[in-house]
Amino acid sequence: MSEDDERLHRAFLARLIEPGDEVCGRWLREIGAAEVVRRLVGGGPQLPGVTDKRWEGLRARAERADPERDLAAARDAGTRFVCPGDSEWPAQLDDLGDARPTGLWVRGRPSLRIWALRSVAVVGARACTEYGAHMATTLGSGLAERGWVVVSGGAYGVDGATHRGALGAGGATVAVLACGVDRPYPRGHTQLINRIAEQGLVVGELPPGDHPTPSRFILRNRVIAALTRGTVVVEAAYRSGALVTARAAQRLGRYAIGVPGPATSALSAGVHELLRGDAVLVTDAAEVAEMVGDMGELAPDRRGPVLPRDLLDPPAARVLAALPAQETASPEEIARGAGTTVDDAIARLYELRSLGFVERHGDGWKLTRQATISVGMDRGRC
Amino acid sequence: MSEDDERLHRAFLARLIEPGDEVCGRWLREIGAAEVVRRLVGGGPQLPGVTDKRWEGLRARAERADPERDLAAARDAGTRFVCPGDSEWPAQLDDLGDARPTGLWVRGRPSLRIWALRSVAVVGARACTEYGAHMATTLGSGLAERGWVVVSGGAYGVDGATHRGALGAGGATVAVLACGVDRPYPRGHTQLINRIAEQGLVVGELPPGDHPTPSRFILRNRVIAALTRGTVVVEAAYRSGALVTARAAQRLGRYAIGVPGPATSALSAGVHELLRGDAVLVTDAAEVAEMVGDMGELAPDRRGPVLPRDLLDPPAARVLAALPAQETASPEEIARGAGTTVDDAIARLYELRSLGFVERHGDGWKLTRQATISVGMDRGRC
Repeated sequence: MSEDDERLHRAFLARLIEPGDEVCGRWLREIGAAEVVRRLVGGGPQLPGVTDKRWEGLRARAERADPERDLAAARDAGTRFVCPGDSEWPAQLDDLGDARPTGLWVRGRPSLRIWALRSVAVVGARACTEYGAHMATTLGSGLAERGWVVVSGGAYGVDGATHRGALGAGGATVAVLACGVDRPYPRGHTQLINRIAEQGLVVGELPPGDHPTPSRFILRNRVIAALTRGTVVVEAAYRSGALVTARAAQRLGRYAIGVPGPATSALSAGVHELLRGDAVLVTDAAEVAEMVGDMGELAPDRRGPVLPRDLLDPPAARVLAALPAQETASPEEIARGAGTTVDDAIARLYELRSLGFVERHGDGWKLTRQATISVGMDRGRC
Repeated sequence: MSEDDERLHRAFLARLIEPGDEVCGRWLREIGAAEVVRRLVGGGPQLPGVTDKRWEGLRARAERADPERDLAAARDAGTRFVCPGDSEWPAQLDDLGDARPTGLWVRGRPSLRIWALRSVAVVGARACTEYGAHMATTLGSGLAERGWVVVSGGAYGVDGATHRGALGAGGATVAVLACGVDRPYPRGHTQLINRIAEQGLVVGELPPGDHPTPSRFILRNRVIAALTRGTVVVEAAYRSGALVTARAAQRLGRYAIGVPGPATSALSAGVHELLRGDAVLVTDAAEVAEMVGDMGELAPDRRGPVLPRDLLDPPAARVLAALPAQETASPEEIARGAGTTVDDAIARLYELRSLGFVERHGDGWKLTRQATISVGMDRGRC
């Protein structure tokens, strides 16, 4: 079976299976996507763990599914469908076990896998206060300035402020949606989400055209938690969805992090509840970076690239080659040198950051010391 | 040597020794107050650990000291000098080791030792925000309503708001001063501190007439930390004295507790620093009480008195006898029944609360279940 067959089968199942359905996830693990599809469309024997009614419902949805049309429509809209096993699949999502997404629809230039390596989530209340919006914007920009990829849910309030903070700092940001990535939700964030797709990534597990529902919002949060090294909650009332994300992060062994607020604010009550448990209190981006960063963060000079230069994708290799040997360069200068757009250069720079080749200093970028040494050696060999 | 001789020697040394002086504390521990005094006034051999100049300074101060006059002046002002070994001495202060106060000057009716058994400190910035003042007042009243003795430093800002909250709830509060208890500091809090002496306790280790100094403020904080089961910091900038109290509490094995605020507030920065360490975040008095309360707090019915009724002081025994068998009574009713003032009744009620005989319910007081059983048995015997 070709890779494309597997993708077609998974695109087919993405139309049928709701996010986080562990029964169907188990079928995929035990007998594979092709066999699950065969049973559903070929009238094979019913699979275990579902009622007859549920099975008939899945078969009825299967009749209406047209994965070739979905994949073609996605391709036309600049969207790819990334599946487990693909080189772009973020291995962190496998921690979700049978609740792992069937696949992820991805809009944007950078590699989701590489960006996710050095990413952190910032989430919180939709109806946040001015204080919450201020903190989200500041964290978004501060984390981006430190070379972190900032992940959020694209919603009003804290999510939107976070994305805007990262974008405004010329940074890397990922919106994980609870609907098809071709139909930005909420509508009022259409421009913002399109801008994120230009400068960063818009991803989701729902196929083109699908609507968000309350349960899809909640289940989307497990993807945010699993993708990132930690989840920062800025403002959240009791029972807020942002707390679901933070608790999922804790269950997955990621950091749960909270930004405090006045004890009198109902919009901080959920965060304080979290902070009275195992979550860690932070007040700025530096403290978040210190927490989610590995040991190397504190001694960046010691960190070498995690990948040989020869294995870089050609676009990333061109951007790396455009960096000067010693000095810092702006994304504009680097884009010119690499013969690409500024947005593409930024996408590649954050990939190279995740891989340990470059560092961000203020608005500029430079080679890490280890990358300089390795480049020097390569040049010496030439 | 009589108890009064010991008190006289310690009152003498209280004039000479600065709070927290561990060298002199060691002398007291090793050779006793009487011998230290003899060496200083009788020209005995110099004691170890001090320079000649320092020794001469102590001898010069010793010449001017007049402990009999100090004790008489204190007595005239309704102040007693409580020393280690006295029945009113709070044993918790012995945890300070050689930095233990020489003695404590105490204004007010209740027993310092018994009140300190169920006490918690609330401290914070002098120049607090309205939010800080609100939280301090709320914690002061909420803790008092739950039967806790609220300890603070009598200063402007958080301290004053805390005391006022406790007083306003008809509660028990202790001001620990960094100067003589006869000269309230700050001057603007003269009325407040006098009111605390009427309804609660004003204590300090400095003898009558002594002024506060920066180092005395800092060293006063160790007494607040040692007296109480935990220290709550409401607002504190970096390097605030309130953080000194909280860290002293941690070193002494007490709880360090912090009330969060906006991450953007410089007056919460010190609290957040504390909360990023081992301190516990709280947002209201119930959470503080849950933290510092022992297991019995959660199941008050199981807790019996810690002292037989026969061993109670006569004033406390009269107040206990004035409580009805089943119902709740107001402090006014209890005061009438015991033939005393309302302030005195309140002082005794918090003593009885510390000893497990009574509970506060709203503005009223009633016997604990265990106390009811024991009273019933006693009555049965009569």
